Amino acid sequence: MNDRQVTASIITVGSEILKGKIIDFNSSNISNYLIKLGINVKYHLSVSDNILDLIRAFKKIEKSDIVITTGGLGPTDDDNTKKAFAEYLNKKLFFDENLWKELKKYYFIKRENIPESNKKQAMNIKGSEIIENKNGTAPGLFYNYNGKYYFLLPGPPRENIPMLKKFVIKKLKSKKYTGNPLYEKIIKIYGLGESNLADILKNINKNCEIGYYFKREGFIELHISKQGKNYTQLKEMVDRTLEEIKNKLDKKKIFYTDNYNLNKLLFLKLKESSRTVSIADTICGGKISSKIVEIPGSSKVFTGSIVAYSNNSKIEILDISQEIIKEHGAVSEKVSREMAANVRNVFDSDIGAGITGIAGPNGGTEEKPVGLVYFTINIDDKNYSFKREFIGDRKRIINKTINSLFIELIKLLDKK
Amino acid sequence: MNDRQVTASIITVGSEILKGKIIDFNSSNISNYLIKLGINVKYHLSVSDNILDLIRAFKKIEKSDIVITTGGLGPTDDDNTKKAFAEYLNKKLFFDENLWKELKKYYFIKRENIPESNKKQAMNIKGSEIIENKNGTAPGLFYNYNGKYYFLLPGPPRENIPMLKKFVIKKLKSKKYTGNPLYEKIIKIYGLGESNLADILKNINKNCEIGYYFKREGFIELHISKQGKNYTQLKEMVDRTLEEIKNKLDKKKIFYTDNYNLNKLLFLKLKESSRTVSIADTICGGKISSKIVEIPGSSKVFTGSIVAYSNNSKIEILDISQEIIKEHGAVSEKVSREMAANVRNVFDSDIGAGITGIAGPNGGTEEKPVGLVYFTINIDDKNYSFKREFIGDRKRIINKTINSLFIELIKLLDKK
Repeated sequence: MNDRQVTASIITVGSEILKGKIIDFNSSNISNYLIKLGINVKYHLSVSDNILDLIRAFKKIEKSDIVITTGGLGPTDDDNTKKAFAEYLNKKLFFDENLWKELKKYYFIKRENIPESNKKQAMNIKGSEIIENKNGTAPGLFYNYNGKYYFLLPGPPRENIPMLKKFVIKKLKSKKYTGNPLYEKIIKIYGLGESNLADILKNINKNCEIGYYFKREGFIELHISKQGKNYTQLKEMVDRTLEEIKNKLDKKKIFYTDNYNLNKLLFLKLKESSRTVSIADTICGGKISSKIVEIPGSSKVFTGSIVAYSNNSKIEILDISQEIIKEHGAVSEKVSREMAANVRNVFDSDIGAGITGIAGPNGGTEEKPVGLVYFTINIDDKNYSFKREFIGDRKRIINKTINSLFIELIKLLDKK
Repeated sequence: MNDRQVTASIITVGSEILKGKIIDFNSSNISNYLIKLGINVKYHLSVSDNILDLIRAFKKIEKSDIVITTGGLGPTDDDNTKKAFAEYLNKKLFFDENLWKELKKYYFIKRENIPESNKKQAMNIKGSEIIENKNGTAPGLFYNYNGKYYFLLPGPPRENIPMLKKFVIKKLKSKKYTGNPLYEKIIKIYGLGESNLADILKNINKNCEIGYYFKREGFIELHISKQGKNYTQLKEMVDRTLEEIKNKLDKKKIFYTDNYNLNKLLFLKLKESSRTVSIADTICGGKISSKIVEIPGSSKVFTGSIVAYSNNSKIEILDISQEIIKEHGAVSEKVSREMAANVRNVFDSDIGAGITGIAGPNGGTEEKPVGLVYFTINIDDKNYSFKREFIGDRKRIINKTINSLFIELIKLLDKK
C-alpha cells in the first residue's frame, strides 16, 4: 500500500446540487485536506437523494481506497445515504439505542423536544464507528470495509469540517493510508498578465510543482508544492524555488504578498507603524473603507471616510474649490490631491487618500474614458499621485482601484 | 424517448478541481440551464486531466442521454478531453485545416502570432460538429453517438456559457431530447428562521415542488416550480401556489422580494420616487453605500456617505454634540437620529440614514453587546428609528445591518 498512491473519491449527495440550486463547496474543501496528507483525489461525484442512484454512485468509485460522502444524513424522507450505503454493503441498518440517547441529549441542551423523525438519525450499521457531530443532529459514520475506508459526513460545512479535522484526518494519519505529505507555499501576485507570468516562470527549476490560479479579485495565486517523505528536503526545495521566483518578481518590480489579503497586510503595516488613515473617494462608493473595516480591530488604524458623489459635497465637505473642479474636472489628479490632504484634516489622520475615477458603464468621454482613475496618498505632508487606466466592467474597475491603492499605500509604509 | 425522463451528466475536467484549488461552478451553471428544459441531471463528475481517468469517466456516465464536459480543450500537454473522447469512441483525431484557419483568424484579429502549440486545438473527430467559441481559442465539439448527445466545452464560464446558450440549448430544443419544461418562480424572504418557514409552508397545496435555500447573505430563497407539458397549466399552478405563500407572508408581515436583490430594489424605488439618499455610518465601514453604488446609474439616487469611526469625526463632521455622545453613548438611538438628520444636510439629499452599532468581535459590553444596532431614517422631515440585536460574526452582523436598513428604507418608500 505504501508503494502506490493512495486514492480517494468524494461523493456529495443532494438533488439541489444536481439542479444547480446550490454549489458544491464540500468536495473542494475536503480535497484540500486530503491532498496535504498526500492522498490522490480521483473523482468528485455529485448524486441525487435517490437511493438507487446513490448505490450506483458507491459502485462507480469503488476502486478508491478512501470514500468520503457528504449529505443525506438528515431526518427527512430525502435522506438516504446511510440506507444506500448499507444496501451497497449488503448489511442491515439497526436502531442504535446509544445513538438515540446522544441525540436526545443534543436536544435537551437546546431545551427542545426531540422530534420522532430524528429516530432515523439513530440508525446504524453493525461494525461501524460513529463520528460525533457537535454542530448538528446528524452523526457521521466510519466503516472499514476490507481495508477500504468509508466516511459518511453531513452536508453543511460547519458540521462536516470539524468532523473532518477531529476524526477523518486523525483516522487517516493513524493508519497505513497516509501517503507522502505535501509541502506547499502560496504567494499572491498583483498586476501580472498570463504571458508575463510564463516569462517569469520560464527558467525556474522544475523540481517542484507550480500551479497558478487567476483570481477574480485581480491577482494570480501561485502555489509551489512538492510531495515526498522527507519534510526537510521538501521544505528546502519549495523554499528555494519560491526564493527564485521572488527574486525575479523583485527585479521586475512586481508586487506580491505571502498569501495575505491586501486589506490584512495594509492593516498590519498601519498598525506596525502606529499610523491612521482616512479615505475620500468618488468612485468605489465606500468599498475601500469597508475592505479596511473587514479586519477586526481596524478602528485602531482607520478614522473615517467620505464618499462624495455630488460635486456639491466635494466642494462643501472636502473643501475643494469650484474653480479647481471646473478647471481640472472632478476626475483629475489635482482633485485627488486636494481630497487626500483635506480628508486627512477632516478625520485628523496620519495618512489621507483621495480617489477619483469613472467606474462606468456610463460617464466616460474620449478624453476621460471609463476606467480612468487618479488617486493621491498624502503621507508625512507629501503627496504621491497615481494615474491608472483599468479595463473591465464596473465591479472589476472598482476592485482594481482598491488593489492598486492598497499596494501603493503598503509600498509607502514599507519605505519609511 | 418522450415517455421517460431524459437524463444528462456533466463532467468537469481538471486536476485543479480535484486538488481543491478551484471550485467547480460549471456543473451548477449548466444544470440550471438543463433543468429548465426538463432534463434530469443524474451526475456531476469531476475528473483529472489524466487520459485514462478521463476515458473511465466517459464510461461511468454512459447511461446518460446527454453528456456535457467542460475543460481540457486547451493547447497544453494537460489538455486531453478530445483525445480521451476519441479513444472512448474508438475513433481517430485528425488535423482539421478549416479549424486551423479559424484559429489563425482569431489571433489575427488580436494582432498576435498564433503559437505552434495551438495546432492541438485544431484536432477534430470525424462526424462531429464544431461549436464556435467567440471568447477564446478552444473550439467546442458536438457529437451524436447513436442518439446520445455529447458536448465538449472549454472550462472558463465566459467561454462555455455563450456556447451553451447559442449552441447546446438550441441543439437540445430542436431534437427529441427536450423533456417536460420547468416553470419556476423565485422569491427571496428576509428575517425568517427555519422552523417559521416550515410553519408558513405547512398548509400550502403540494402540487408544486417547493425548494428553499438558506443564503449566506441572510435570506431564504424559495423556488416554486412545476414540470409538465402544458405551459399555461404549469404557470397557473405555480402562480397560485406563490400567491398562497405571499398571502401568508403578508399576514405575518414578513418581507420578501420577487427575486430582486435588495440594493437593486432600493435603487428602483428611489428612482421611481425621484429621491436621493445619503448615509452616515459607524458600523458597516462604507459597505452600505458600496452596495448602492454597485448598481450602474446610482449617482442619480445617492449623493454621498460618511463613515465616522473616531468620536471626534462624529462631532466635527456630523455635528453631533459631545454631550449627546457622552449621555447616550456613540451607539444609541439618539446618535443615529442626529446622524440621519445631519448627513441629509451635509449631502443635501431627500433622505438621510444614520447607522450606529457594534460589529465585534470586541467592543461589546453587557449593556451594549456585540450585534446591537440602532439606525434612523430621516425622510420627509420625520425620523424613523429602529433597534436590532443581531447574532453572528462581524461579517454577518454587517450584512444583516445592511439588509435591515434597506428593507426599512424600501418599506418607507412604498408607503408614500
